[in-house]
Formats: sequence, C-alpha cells, structure tokens
Amino acid sequence: MQPVKVYADRRSQPSRAVIIFCRVNQIDFEEVTVDLFKSQHLTPEFKKVNPMGQVPAIVDGRFKLFESHAILRYLASVFPGVADHWYPADLFTRAKIESILDWHHTNLRRGAATLVQHTALAPFLGLTTSPEAVEQAEKLLMQSLGVIESLWLKGDAKFLLGNPQPSIADLSLVCEIMQLEILGDEVCDRFLGAHEKILIWMDNVRKTTSPHFEEAHELLFQVKARMLQSKAAASNQAFEPSTKLKIASKL
Amino acid sequence: MQPVKVYADRRSQPSRAVIIFCRVNQIDFEEVTVDLFKSQHLTPEFKKVNPMGQVPAIVDGRFKLFESHAILRYLASVFPGVADHWYPADLFTRAKIESILDWHHTNLRRGAATLVQHTALAPFLGLTTSPEAVEQAEKLLMQSLGVIESLWLKGDAKFLLGNPQPSIADLSLVCEIMQLEILGDEVCDRFLGAHEKILIWMDNVRKTTSPHFEEAHELLFQVKARMLQSKAAASNQAFEPSTKLKIASKL
Ligand SMILES: N[C@@H](CCC(=O)N[C@@H](CS)C(=O)NCC(=O)O)C(=O)O
Ligand SMILES: N[C@@H](CCC(=O)N[C@@H](CS)C(=O)NCC(=O)O)C(=O)O
Repeated sequence: MQPVKVYADRRSQPSRAVIIFCRVNQIDFEEVTVDLFKSQHLTPEFKKVNPMGQVPAIVDGRFKLFESHAILRYLASVFPGVADHWYPADLFTRAKIESILDWHHTNLRRGAATLVQHTALAPFLGLTTSPEAVEQAEKLLMQSLGVIESLWLKGDAKFLLGNPQPSIADLSLVCEIMQLEILGDEVCDRFLGAHEKILIWMDNVRKTTSPHFEEAHELLFQVKARMLQSKAAASNQAFEPSTKLKIASKL
Repeated sequence: MQPVKVYADRRSQPSRAVIIFCRVNQIDFEEVTVDLFKSQHLTPEFKKVNPMGQVPAIVDGRFKLFESHAILRYLASVFPGVADHWYPADLFTRAKIESILDWHHTNLRRGAATLVQHTALAPFLGLTTSPEAVEQAEKLLMQSLGVIESLWLKGDAKFLLGNPQPSIADLSLVCEIMQLEILGDEVCDRFLGAHEKILIWMDNVRKTTSPHFEEAHELLFQVKARMLQSKAAASNQAFEPSTKLKIASKL
C-alpha cells in the first residue's frame, strides 16, 4: 500500500487539521508542501491534484479528494485504526457533528478567515483593507465563539457536544481558532479572553493530540513572530509584489 | 412512530431541498411553516427547535438537528427506505459527494445567496445595496457554475460526478440555483444560458423528483411573479418596515 499523499501548507488551518489527524491516528501518509506564498497552488501540476487550486487535498492511490471536512470523514472511514470517537458510527452523534462541520463554513471560518485576511495578511502584504469587512468579520467571529461556548460546550463539556473524546469537528474548529494567533496576543485576548470554556476546550484538544498539535502549529508561531517583528519589512523582503497580490485571499 | 417535524419556509432553498427529499423518499414527516417574512424564526418557540434561528431544522422524537446538509445525511441514513444513490454507502462515491456539499457552502451558495440578497431582496424590501458585494457575488456565482459544469458534469453526465442517479448534493445544489428564478428571466439567462449542461442536469433532477420538485417550488414562482409585478408596491403593502429590516439577510 502506498502512503496517502497529503498536499498542505501548514500556514493553512484546514491543512493543519488534516496533518494532525493523520499523525494522531498513525495513518501512513506523505506530506507534500504546497507553498501558497510561492503560488505553488496555482501550478498546472497541483491543479491536476485539486482543480480548485486549494489546500488541503489528498491523493490515495488513484483517488483524489479536496475539502478538509470531506478528507477528514474519508480518512476516518477508510482507515480501520481510527478510533470511533473521531467520526462516530452512531447516527445521532454523527449527525450532530455534521451539523457543526456544516455550520463552521459560513460562521466561524468565515469570521476568522476574513478577519485574518483583512487585518493581518492585507497590511503584511501591502494591500488595502476594508473597514466594513473587518467589522462584519469581527461580529461574526464573536457570535460564532459565543455559539460554541454556550451551545456545544455547555456544562463542563471536555469536547464539543459534551463528548468524552474529540471528533473531527473539534479538530477542525480548534485549528481555525488557532489562526487568530497571528493577529497578536492582544487581539486573541479580545476574542478569547471572555470565552473561558473555549480556552479550556482548545487546551483539551491540544493535549489529546500532543505532540502533533504543537508540531503542526510551529510554522504558525514562526509566521506570528515574523509579523510582529516587522510587518512591512517582512513583506518587502520575502515576496515579490505579484505574489503578494495572489496570496491576498488565500489563507 | 411520530412523523419527523420539518421546520421550513419554502422560500428558502435549503428548506425546499429537505422537503423534496422527504416527499420523494416517502418519509413520514410533518411540515411546520416558519414564515421568515413574519419573523417566526426569531420567536423563543422556534429558538428551542433551532437556537440559530434558521430554517430548515428538524425534530425527530427528542432529536433536534439543523443545517440542511446534516439533515439530508441524517434522513438518508436513518430511513431504510431511502435508496442508496442519495447518500451512497460506498466510501469513495460518498467522499466525492461530501466534497461537493462542503464546497457548496463557500462557493455556489455564497455567490447565489449574496446576489439574491443584494439584487432582489434588498430593493424589494427597500434596503440599500452594495455594488461591490453584487460584483463579487456575480463573479463567485459564475465561477461556481463553471466548476459544476466542467468538473462534475463533464462528458454526458446525467447527475453530478457522472452518477446514474441523483445524490443529496444534486438536490441541494439544484435548489440553490433555482433561487435565481426570482431575479427574473434575463438574469437567469445571463448566468445559465451559457451553461447548457447545468440546464440539462437541473431538468434531470426535476424529472426524477417530479411532481414534488415542482410542488415545492410553487411558492418561489409566486414570489417571482409578485416581485416582477411591482417590487416597490409589493414591499410597501406586505410588510412593516421593522420586519423588512430583519428579513434582509435571511433567505
Ligand atoms: N473549505 C476548504 C477551504 C480550503 C481553503 O480555503 N484553502 C486555502 C488555504 S486555508 C487555500 O488553499 N487558498 C488558496 C486559494 O484559494 O487560492 C477546506 O476546508 O478545505
Ligand atoms: N447552511 C444552512 C443555511 C440556513 C439558512 O441560511 N437559512 C435561511 C433561509 S435560506 C434562514 O433561516 N435565515 C434566517 C436568518 O438567518 O435569520 C443550511 O444549509 O441549512
């Protein structure tokens, strides 16, 4: 059996979720880095893997798949070694997890990704930002965190829905929230400071997936450090203007 | 066994997908209308069904669920009478369908729903619109239609992915595209005219789900007719200003 090829950029939150999942579940995989900052996702070679030109994507034998949630479901289903709690066979538990995964796309992800794009990437890459987009994204992000905390982490839930072990939804959502790190500690604190249950839950997910969680997030913390040092300097030195424009809406 | 309660507004595309699915598969269900234009989705009663205050949502015994894709997966899984093609047990076929369902949220749906909101609902309800939002939505919608046509309907595919029978992804996406009807024939033609395969596919989905498809879309065509007659007059007569504001981003 050939290892599954996982095409990923560790700066991308859904890429990290897939990598952590593979490592924790000892799935035999080969990580193929698709550097978004070098526009490697736009090459004809990568478009053969994923015609959408996005990471993550996988190739398992002759089978190709994109969209991180679909990938996580697939890996959890085809690898017999994956523990049931990641994607429970019980139809009721599974349906609730599906509901969170679907909700994620247009709520938490939209809020967090738009905010990161407009407040971290755009200035870093020398692009103009839209105050309305930032305001809307902040509102959606704050609302989404409120939903997670009050609905899915109620009581003393260790994981989403009060489950005793994490599911693919825990991993996907926590990786999304981790992206806020690159906005700096003050912004993180503004969003997460008032959400104590979310902080505890994130730590629970980290602990049950350690050391793979920390390892997969190393690059993110390096990006954060570089951004803090000097946004402008970093953007001028590291990238060509044309690349900057292409990357603007990518992460 | 009690019938499944389906909370829906037939003006909402994901609501229609769930209703059509139940009818076609002879699922014993009771449709509970949640009139978005009367803000019934914001009542405390409905928030007990779906704390997000959105349709569709279902209640099956004591089990509650929201998000149309999660609902469709659940119904396809728990009702043994549902034919396999709707949500195939084969992991590879299923994974490809999941990929389309996930893609839908941030591509086709985002394009179509934003366009409908800014060009049909906003003027109809007397709200201001944003030209940038319209432009972005049109671009995303056109791109999304291009992806469906060139990637999932290639060759002489009857249904998405070349499947011989429709899946829940066919139903969900076709209901989304049907929403464009309320923009009028000219706009529909601008988007769909150049996508012959999409038109044929939509007709295939309609035919295999007939007469439930047509019946579930009757209200949409009534809304369309009313909008065409007189957008301004209709909005002034039918709704209070406060309701108008609440409904603006709802469909
Ligand atoms: N819904 C997709 C999102 C994938 C996505 O947006 N990937 C980004 C990185 S986080 C990307 O590849 N962007 C490049 C581009 O869109 O051109 C998933 O969960 O896999
Ligand atoms: N992703 C959700 C979308 C649900 C949704 O946006 N429903 C709209 C009608 S199409 C709604 O209830 N809007 C009311 C609101 O958001 O306040 C699904 O597929 O079920």
